[in-house]
Amino acid sequence: MINISRWLPAWLRRYRREWLGGDLGAGLIVSVMLIPQSLADALLAGLPPQAGLYASVLPLVAYALLGSSMTLAVGPVAVLSLMTAAALSPLAVAGSAEYAMLAILLALMSGLMLFAAGLLRLGFLAYFLSRPVISGFIAGSAVLIALGQLKYLLGIPLPNANAITMLRALPDSIALLNSTTVTIGLLSLLYLVLARTGLPRLMRRLGSAEQLIFLTTRLSTPAIVVVATVYSALQDLHTVAGVAVVGNVPSGLPILSLPSFEAPAMQALFLPALLISLVGFVETVSVGQSLALKRGERIVPDRELLGTGAANIASALSGGFPVTGGFARSVVNVDAGARTPASSLISALLIAFVITGFTGWLHHLPLTVLAATIIVSVLAMVELQELKDAWRYDKADAISLLLTFAGVLIAGVEQGILLGVALSLATLVWRSSRPHMAVVGRVPGTEHFRNIDRHQVETVSGLIALRVDESLYFANARALEDKIESLLQAQADTRCLLLIMSAVNQLDTTALDMLNELDHSLAARSITLQFAEIKGPVLDRLRPTALGKRLEQRVFLSTHQAFADFAKRGSQHA
Amino acid sequence: MINISRWLPAWLRRYRREWLGGDLGAGLIVSVMLIPQSLADALLAGLPPQAGLYASVLPLVAYALLGSSMTLAVGPVAVLSLMTAAALSPLAVAGSAEYAMLAILLALMSGLMLFAAGLLRLGFLAYFLSRPVISGFIAGSAVLIALGQLKYLLGIPLPNANAITMLRALPDSIALLNSTTVTIGLLSLLYLVLARTGLPRLMRRLGSAEQLIFLTTRLSTPAIVVVATVYSALQDLHTVAGVAVVGNVPSGLPILSLPSFEAPAMQALFLPALLISLVGFVETVSVGQSLALKRGERIVPDRELLGTGAANIASALSGGFPVTGGFARSVVNVDAGARTPASSLISALLIAFVITGFTGWLHHLPLTVLAATIIVSVLAMVELQELKDAWRYDKADAISLLLTFAGVLIAGVEQGILLGVALSLATLVWRSSRPHMAVVGRVPGTEHFRNIDRHQVETVSGLIALRVDESLYFANARALEDKIESLLQAQADTRCLLLIMSAVNQLDTTALDMLNELDHSLAARSITLQFAEIKGPVLDRLRPTALGKRLEQRVFLSTHQAFADFAKRGSQHA
Repeated sequence: MINISRWLPAWLRRYRREWLGGDLGAGLIVSVMLIPQSLADALLAGLPPQAGLYASVLPLVAYALLGSSMTLAVGPVAVLSLMTAAALSPLAVAGSAEYAMLAILLALMSGLMLFAAGLLRLGFLAYFLSRPVISGFIAGSAVLIALGQLKYLLGIPLPNANAITMLRALPDSIALLNSTTVTIGLLSLLYLVLARTGLPRLMRRLGSAEQLIFLTTRLSTPAIVVVATVYSALQDLHTVAGVAVVGNVPSGLPILSLPSFEAPAMQALFLPALLISLVGFVETVSVGQSLALKRGERIVPDRELLGTGAANIASALSGGFPVTGGFARSVVNVDAGARTPASSLISALLIAFVITGFTGWLHHLPLTVLAATIIVSVLAMVELQELKDAWRYDKADAISLLLTFAGVLIAGVEQGILLGVALSLATLVWRSSRPHMAVVGRVPGTEHFRNIDRHQVETVSGLIALRVDESLYFANARALEDKIESLLQAQADTRCLLLIMSAVNQLDTTALDMLNELDHSLAARSITLQFAEIKGPVLDRLRPTALGKRLEQRVFLSTHQAFADFAKRGSQHA
Repeated sequence: MINISRWLPAWLRRYRREWLGGDLGAGLIVSVMLIPQSLADALLAGLPPQAGLYASVLPLVAYALLGSSMTLAVGPVAVLSLMTAAALSPLAVAGSAEYAMLAILLALMSGLMLFAAGLLRLGFLAYFLSRPVISGFIAGSAVLIALGQLKYLLGIPLPNANAITMLRALPDSIALLNSTTVTIGLLSLLYLVLARTGLPRLMRRLGSAEQLIFLTTRLSTPAIVVVATVYSALQDLHTVAGVAVVGNVPSGLPILSLPSFEAPAMQALFLPALLISLVGFVETVSVGQSLALKRGERIVPDRELLGTGAANIASALSGGFPVTGGFARSVVNVDAGARTPASSLISALLIAFVITGFTGWLHHLPLTVLAATIIVSVLAMVELQELKDAWRYDKADAISLLLTFAGVLIAGVEQGILLGVALSLATLVWRSSRPHMAVVGRVPGTEHFRNIDRHQVETVSGLIALRVDESLYFANARALEDKIESLLQAQADTRCLLLIMSAVNQLDTTALDMLNELDHSLAARSITLQFAEIKGPVLDRLRPTALGKRLEQRVFLSTHQAFADFAKRGSQHA
């Protein structure tokens, strides 16, 4: 029973009837929001629009069955679409059948990697990209995506490249712009921005119901899409004014199929698939955890790996491309009353319904409107406040953010995330290599010992008492060795070195070796190494080792006892 | 004055006359030991023997001027020679002029990388390979090197490949062995093993002076080389019995020159140069630090980067190949009485003297003897005890060791070290993602608070007091969030969550964001977030932030005060 419930969706077995209303409503709103967004993301990825719809059916079902978040809404997201385009454009021509096949292979590889990582319980890897690096990456990608949409928004040709190349090509292209396209695009942009800022404020002042304000804001995208499509169809803007539109979207559900496995393609896609998996997973966990916390729920990173892995495999099987949990749609899902992943099942059903026979309605949707929706949604992800806060609180973090941001813009999205990973790891190593330590002395008249740099305390000549404030392991063991040597050089008369281990929860093999070596080398210099306040579990493991056996008489329960023992031996010696 | 002394060798300006005797003797012994070893390492790297001698002159001078260790002896080492061969053999034929030029380029690139890292103060990177990974890498390389020497030891053809391929080819080749070569090789091997094990014991029993025993042991390699060379020359073994010998070694000092910079070669050598730099640097720092500690000296990792960087650049300029600090020769240097890098300068001078006119003496040295010296010295680096200790103390570390060992043997030396880096980083991330935390309660009748799992303590209904035992930062912030959520789910009546921050020395931007988010989401669930025992420096930085401003009334000096406050509010509420 317990074993089964660990892998089967608990929410389904415990489903309560009163949740259905919320799940139904949320499923409906999310699917209405997801349709234009998935079309836009497919175009962003260089794929035909139906690929976006395909990626919004089975992946939702797969995640609902295996994921651990109750309210996460998965599907195509802008950042992964950008990464997909970056990975595939060197290998095939966007829009070709080969390109679509490679997108499927990419989703499959990413899905298998995520699923395998879930089975190996590598969920902890979600923690190793620092927040500033994630923010910098998202902001850089957002700007890159927005720039890439300018060609649709303005109806001009622009190269798909890095930010600098695009900005350079802009002045020459601007002459070619189509005035109808620009007008529709900019009006859409204006409306979408107002719907997110001024409109809710105005409606609130006019006394509108919160529910109505919510719907107006959240459904502004579907609303403009519907209005623009109807107008475009009535006026036949494509024929009359040369406005680019979505065009034919084949109807009918995708046929389940496996991509062909070609070794060179798989080799070329290995790193992109890994990076897409990483970014997708980090995004899912960040979004999932922040939603869960607000509702008193938990997400389990290992199960998120299985869930997003299965979603990507499902996406590949049904002709889609890489997917993950999206922030905006998950928030809408929660706000609209979703209680369980049933809402995702309902969204999937509705989108499948649209695919079976209503794709014709999308024909006249102008691409410039889709571009406007993408630009507004990605630029909302750029949080300048975060940079300001980081700059004030921790310059190093702010610099990480800026470097990752610049890396994405200048070198591209893959190099940008690699730079971010390298920066995060370097920060981790650097931070780990500088453990906090303090030389302590006795607070006069007490049995308390405090940092000699911060308090008025008494020290004893010949004895150095060093408090180690972190667990000792390979990344910081040498730093302790180094600290001790510098202390000993400063106080040549030292006869005893006391390590206070009150904060040491763990001691790995490297640290154990280091202490062993330290004991030998101090002994050769007639300095006694002593320990105080070793935690129980640490001492239990230390005792049977060679070092532990030699120490026996040199481990004290408290710093006070160690000081007393030193004083006693000192007087005997004198 | 201070600025200059930081970069110029302090030991030279403070040199005392009484140190000269020790430095002279050590310099002599190290050079006698270094000559056969550098020839052997050159052959191992696929280079002509003189390259080994060239790599043993200027690099020693460069390190003596810039390095921070007083007793480290640099020069060619077996592991780097193996890595050099692995890097170059796909690009050129061993023994060709192109191959030698690529070796020079490799040394130059590695030297520039190390030097640049030194200027950027990246010395802390030395700490991020864990000891088990280093041991596994060294043991794997040692076995690979020993296997690779079988072809010289037995005088048979064997492919240069991974361990499995070599062992497979062995049975077919064994029929081709040259009996004279095998006899000389195995006798040398036997002698070298005895000289390291049985002989010193026997001499000690016979009452020999320790100095004599030391010389006999340490100079066993030069001794067998001299004896074998003289015997080989007298009998003309090469002509008479087909024994492979070193052959002509051109005399005359190397001409200083720069390699040609070809973009494709530099691109192909980038990763190998990076890995060679990493391994060389880690080896130098490990050896240097363990020597320094015994003598009450310090090494400075950033200066080691500059020192080994300069040594490699010097090696490249004088026709050598990658070098670093070697363990065996540094120990000999110390044991023979070296006090300062002057001993290295003397070694360099003596080897330069040999190069100028005495290389003819090396002509008849049988390669099988060199192979025997390599096998004995590298197999001495395999420490089974380390594996046993690790297995008993920490299984995860033992597995890291075995995986790296297997990786080197099966996939080769470069893939092996990459695996090791990945394992070390994964360990670091994994370890960092599991911070130590404990729910605490009051020790009855006191103001002390202890872990509720380990002590008999009192808790208060509605209040969870969680002690965080490590600094909070991006890699462990989410783990705290997760822990809190699981505690809250277990105790649904919680009204207050108290975080005891006594062990938190740092709080990065990611952790700050997490606490901020936590505060908001707990507030939404009517749970108060409180803090106790925040360290002064942490609180100073926290205060001006948005979170800090909101907290004001919720930060307590002690856990006791926080409990008292909760009790007071509880009674008011009731």
